[in-house]
Parts: sequence; structure tokens; C-alpha cells
Amino acid sequence: MNSWHLARGYRYAGLHCGVRADASRPDLALVVSDLPACAAGAFTRNRVRAAPVRVCQERLPSADVRGVVVCSGNANACTGQRGLDDARRMTHVAAEALGCDPRAVLVCSTGVIGRHLPMPQLESGIRAAARQLGPAAEDLSAAAHAILTTDTRIKVATQEIEIGGRAIRLTGFAKGAAMIGPNMATMLAFVFSDAAVHPDDLAALAPRAAEQTFNCVSVEGHTSTNDTLLLLANGAASVADSGRREFLRGEALARFAAAATDVCGELARAIAADAEGAHHFITIEVEGLRDDREAYRVAKAVADSPLVKTAVCGADPNWGRVVSAAGYAGVEFEEEHLSLWLGDLLLYHAGTPQPFDPATASAYLRRERQVLLRLRFTLGPGRCTFWTCDLTQEYVRLNADYTT
Amino acid sequence: MNSWHLARGYRYAGLHCGVRADASRPDLALVVSDLPACAAGAFTRNRVRAAPVRVCQERLPSADVRGVVVCSGNANACTGQRGLDDARRMTHVAAEALGCDPRAVLVCSTGVIGRHLPMPQLESGIRAAARQLGPAAEDLSAAAHAILTTDTRIKVATQEIEIGGRAIRLTGFAKGAAMIGPNMATMLAFVFSDAAVHPDDLAALAPRAAEQTFNCVSVEGHTSTNDTLLLLANGAASVADSGRREFLRGEALARFAAAATDVCGELARAIAADAEGAHHFITIEVEGLRDDREAYRVAKAVADSPLVKTAVCGADPNWGRVVSAAGYAGVEFEEEHLSLWLGDLLLYHAGTPQPFDPATASAYLRRERQVLLRLRFTLGPGRCTFWTCDLTQEYVRLNADYTT
Repeated sequence: MNSWHLARGYRYAGLHCGVRADASRPDLALVVSDLPACAAGAFTRNRVRAAPVRVCQERLPSADVRGVVVCSGNANACTGQRGLDDARRMTHVAAEALGCDPRAVLVCSTGVIGRHLPMPQLESGIRAAARQLGPAAEDLSAAAHAILTTDTRIKVATQEIEIGGRAIRLTGFAKGAAMIGPNMATMLAFVFSDAAVHPDDLAALAPRAAEQTFNCVSVEGHTSTNDTLLLLANGAASVADSGRREFLRGEALARFAAAATDVCGELARAIAADAEGAHHFITIEVEGLRDDREAYRVAKAVADSPLVKTAVCGADPNWGRVVSAAGYAGVEFEEEHLSLWLGDLLLYHAGTPQPFDPATASAYLRRERQVLLRLRFTLGPGRCTFWTCDLTQEYVRLNADYTT
Repeated sequence: MNSWHLARGYRYAGLHCGVRADASRPDLALVVSDLPACAAGAFTRNRVRAAPVRVCQERLPSADVRGVVVCSGNANACTGQRGLDDARRMTHVAAEALGCDPRAVLVCSTGVIGRHLPMPQLESGIRAAARQLGPAAEDLSAAAHAILTTDTRIKVATQEIEIGGRAIRLTGFAKGAAMIGPNMATMLAFVFSDAAVHPDDLAALAPRAAEQTFNCVSVEGHTSTNDTLLLLANGAASVADSGRREFLRGEALARFAAAATDVCGELARAIAADAEGAHHFITIEVEGLRDDREAYRVAKAVADSPLVKTAVCGADPNWGRVVSAAGYAGVEFEEEHLSLWLGDLLLYHAGTPQPFDPATASAYLRRERQVLLRLRFTLGPGRCTFWTCDLTQEYVRLNADYTT
């Protein structure tokens, strides 16, 4: 926590309000920007979008966001009109407590699908959170804890960069990948910056940053109904220095975009590393396809294959599973175009199996918690790096053993 | 076995030749048609196609097939030019033993990817199999056993139908779905008939039959390098009755196609029911989308979701996982268009969660080994029935614990 560079002008709170039965688990987070922040987001591509996702999409991009309210333990998804009313009500209650327009508040939820929110508990919880807001690392930590579901730890990433002689900070935090828990849905991620960035620029940046980071992480390939990335930029850094807000442009904007993408990448990798029941963190590097899109499709097919993931879990260098997963990715290639490495070990070269010592390969998988699979094609400049985890008996137990 | 209707004019053998180390497990099957058979096939859509798949594709459709040779324990996939030479060599050795042209022999393999075949063992095994061929149910059973990998039982389906006053028989057998085993690849299926069907008609029929049957089964969605369906029709039924071969046409051909598709369907369901580590057989019925293709995409997304499959394993009526899987199938719909039943229990109606007793739903999942998920949309006539199984800790153990 001591090394976090917290963006100026934000306050955080996290507490238990009663969405969850277990009173020891926080389930409500509130983040407030002291200045009206510009904001944009990137959202799930699932046709079934949770109510809070719809509310955020209605309100973004915006130049006037004051708060974000998040509950965990209930996704408020597949809940019909009542779910939409509840999501809007959450923003109303927060807006009353903050003294702003309800449309200046964004809302997220994560948890079980198909249940209505416990609104009385949420309403008093939101009012209590508004009284507890603070700007310190502990406050951020409380908020980061309150959005977790089956994550085992908080995911926070911060950056400080200098742009035009000013220190610009970004505070990011996130929760669990895809749909990994026994009972929950969703990746949620937030990046709060004190830079001044035009809403249209944020709106262009958010999906691009997600594309290279959160969309390159998969636990089991089940796209959730609630996936949300929110980017806020309140300009507090410029106000602090010069008293006025000037939007970043050109090179400065590009540097901000790179920093925001870095923060998202760090959060995305933290999500894969903390995936439910996982023993290995797997990086899949694909290069040499016609374009990045093709490389992405191959990387995702390999990452989503339960057979690849169980092989890594069992330290089994069964590389045919990787090659055959690449083969059904929907990308045209011949076997002669493909070579495959496990770590430094060449297993398959230009369509021909290579002699290798299975014991060495298996020892690598047993020893390393971070495993690298590299697929090299000879068809062009397209590349992609993708992150996933292994599939363990623990994953199945956790996802099966919730019974009613 | 006593109830099998065996097509006339086929002989079978199955034995251990040494592809596998375990001498108690048969690993070589040979099937011979006494008359030259018309034949066609349907094959994996994986870009990485095993050598025997390529050899079959070169030779089909054909009006002159005499034999099919199959080895299990080694997929002969990702084995380069040497693999192709080995697959062709298998057909040469079989042709010598049968006294026919090598191009009249088809070849399949299933097992580990990326290892070369033990050709000396296979060559003597093929010669031994040719000496053991027999037409009885025991002989078919021996062949059906010899193609298995991690299947727990043989899959045989037969039919007898009357066409134009003649009894037409179809003998089908198959092995394990998709890539389900610790160490193997592939679905292989064979349908041998004594009808007389033109090769072009068989070539049109094979992919259509596979589309509605084998392509509607998934264990974990990993398309193998070796998937093969072969249809043979040797005309022995007509020869037996009239001494000459007349190809089925029109209505008679349609009835034959329906029977062949029925046999494939029975084999496909047997594959899903015998999937590695599975406790539940899951039928997914999707109706009311714009066309069958859309219904297929939704059904497959639900079937392939590890979260749906672990929920069924754990008897958890967590229906949000089903709805959200439908949402990422790449089919346009709104939640209001969708209703969902688990067995007879309505869980979600026109976009709104329905009150239901979770204990009743959970008891249904605990009690029944055959589980029905029904998704009804209101967008058109498109429908699809898809079969899969649950995802268990046993599956992960079996697929992870092969170590070198």
C-alpha cells in the first residue's frame, strides 16, 4: 500500500451493508470524485447485460461524473424492469448523499445472477458509505475489498507519469476474471486519474485498453453479463498546479493512454493469477499470423481449451492439445507454418514433432507457477499475448459444490 | 448383441498388435466388405488434420472400397510426411492381405498426438487381423472394442428398414467424443450398410448426418484432429435378392438417409453418455430462433460452458449461467425473447426470473442422470437439440494426471 501513487481528488469507502449474509464480508464500495470527472467505459459483449451495465451505458461518456457505487454478492442481472429500477435507485441514493445529480453517479454489481437486490440494506449502506469516505490508501483498500467475490486478494495497480512537467497519477483496482466463482459473475475494473482527458478521448481509449488487456484474459471463456471497465479523469492534477483544467492532446494524450493501458494490463494479469482454484498462470504468445486479430483468435482458442488447461495442471507436456486447439481457432494455416515452444523447449517445428525429453518438460511445468506457451507462425506480422490459468479439480469443486 | 441387425457382406476383426503397451487392450480393427462398397465420409474441421484423415479425404467418395483399418492408442496426427507415409503403408498392407488395390482401403487412427506409429507391430497386426475376419456379432464386438480409447464401453447401433420390399440393414459403431481422454483424440464413427447407394448421394448424406448428430455432441468443445465418420454401402441386400445392384433414389434414398442419421444420432448420444468422468447426460433443446444455425450456436455455447457443466455436476440450479452463456453465443436477442426450463420447471420467463423452489430443482439434478435444459425464444422457427455431459473433478483428474 505504501508504494501506491493515488490520484488526487478521489475518496473511497467500503463496508458490509447486507447484500451478503456473512457480516464479515464487505459488499458495498463507493468512490467519489471531488471534481466533476470525465468518464467513459467498456462493457461486456454479452447480449444479456445486467441492469447496472445498461445504466452506465446510458450515462457514458460524460463530463460530469461524481461517484461510482458498486455492490458485490448480487449481479442484478436477468432481473427485468425491477432490476433497472433498483440500479437507478442506487445512483439516486448515492447522489442524495453526495449532493449531486443522480446521472452523475455510475453503478456496478457483481455476484449471483437472477436475484433482486436487497434495496433497504443497500440504501442505508450507501448513506453510511458516503459518511466514511476517505482519500487514503486504507480507504482505497476498503473499497477494493468490497468489490471482491471469490477473489482471494485485492487487485490494485497505480502509476505516476510526468506529462508536461506535471505528475499525473492513475489509481486502478479490479476484481475476479470472467465467471470463475461458485456463485458469481464478472470482471469489474476501475481506473481513476487526476489527468484532464476529454470524454470523447476516454470513450475511444476505454475499449482499446480493454481489448489489449482484459479481453486477453480468460479463465473458462464464459463472458459475463456484468463485465465493466470504467475510466475516470477528474483533472485534479492540472487544477492543483494551475487552477484550470486543460484536456490532454496529441503526444500527451498518447502517453496517458499508454499508462492507462499499462494499469489495465497489470490488473488483468492479477485477475488471471488469482483465478479460482488455479495452480499455474499461463502466458500464451502467438506471433506470425496475418494480423493481430488472427493471433488473438488462436491465442484465445488455446487459452480456452480445457484439455490444454488440464494438461498444464497435471504437468503433462501433451503439446498435441495446443496444436490442435490452434487448428480449430478458425484461422487458415497449414501445419508447416507452425512451431511451438513450452518455455525454452522447442516441441514442434514447422509441422514436425521435435525430439525432447518429456521429463524435462514435465519438470518445467511442475516447477514453474508461471508457464509460457509460444506459438510461432510464418504467415505475417500479427501477434497477441494472452493470459490464462490451469483447470484444476479445485475449480470444479468450487463451481459445483454450491448447493441450495 | 443378440438384437443387432448386422448388414450383410461385412466381416470384422479386432486384436492387440502393440500400438499400446498394455497387451490386454486391443488396438487394431479391420472391417472388410465382401463386395466393393460405395463410400463417403465427414471429417474434422480442424486445420490440423491427422494423416489418416488426409488419406481418407484423398480417396473419397469412392465406388470401390473394400476395407477400413483403424488403430487406437496413437492418432498419427502432427507427424508430418512420415505420418502420411505410415497411414498409406497401413492401407497397402491391408490391401495385400485382402488382395485388393491399396486405394480401396480407408484408414483411421485415434490416440496420442505427435508420435510416430510403431509400423512393424501394425504391419503384422494387420496381417493377423485379415486372417481373423468374421461376420458374427462377436466379430463386430471385437472391432468395436479395438477402436476405443478411454471409453468405458463399446457403442454399437444397428437398424433394419424395409425399402421396396427389401430388408436394408445398417451397422454402426463409434468411439469417444471430442477430446475427452487423458491422452487421446477423437470421435470415430462407422456406418456399414448393405443398401446400394451412389457415392455422390453418400457424399451429400455424410456431412448432413454428422451435422445433426455428431456435431451436436460436445464434451469440452475441443475439436479433434482425427474426427471421422465413414459411411459404406455395399449393395449386398440387393445383390442377395436380385443378383444386381440398383442405387436407391428419391423416396427410398430419403428413407435410407433418415435411417443412417438415426444410427448416427444413437451413436452420438452414446458418446456423450459415456464421456470421461461424467455423472450427468445433458440434453439442450433450443427453439424459436430465426433459423437452425442460430439455435445451434446458442445450444453449443450453453453446452460448452464449464460453468453450466459444473453447476449440473453440483446439482446447483444456477440458471443465470445458462442465460448468460446464451448471451455470448453471437446471436442477437433481447432478454424478453427468452424463457428457460430445467426439466419441467420454468425458471426464467420472457426476461424475468420466476419464483421456484431451489430444493426441488436441486433434487431433480441430484436424482436424474438425464437432465433437460430447454431454452425457448420467440424469434422464429429455428431449433436444435444438442447433447453434452457435466464437468466433474473426475474429468480434471483423468485429464491432468497423465504424467511422463
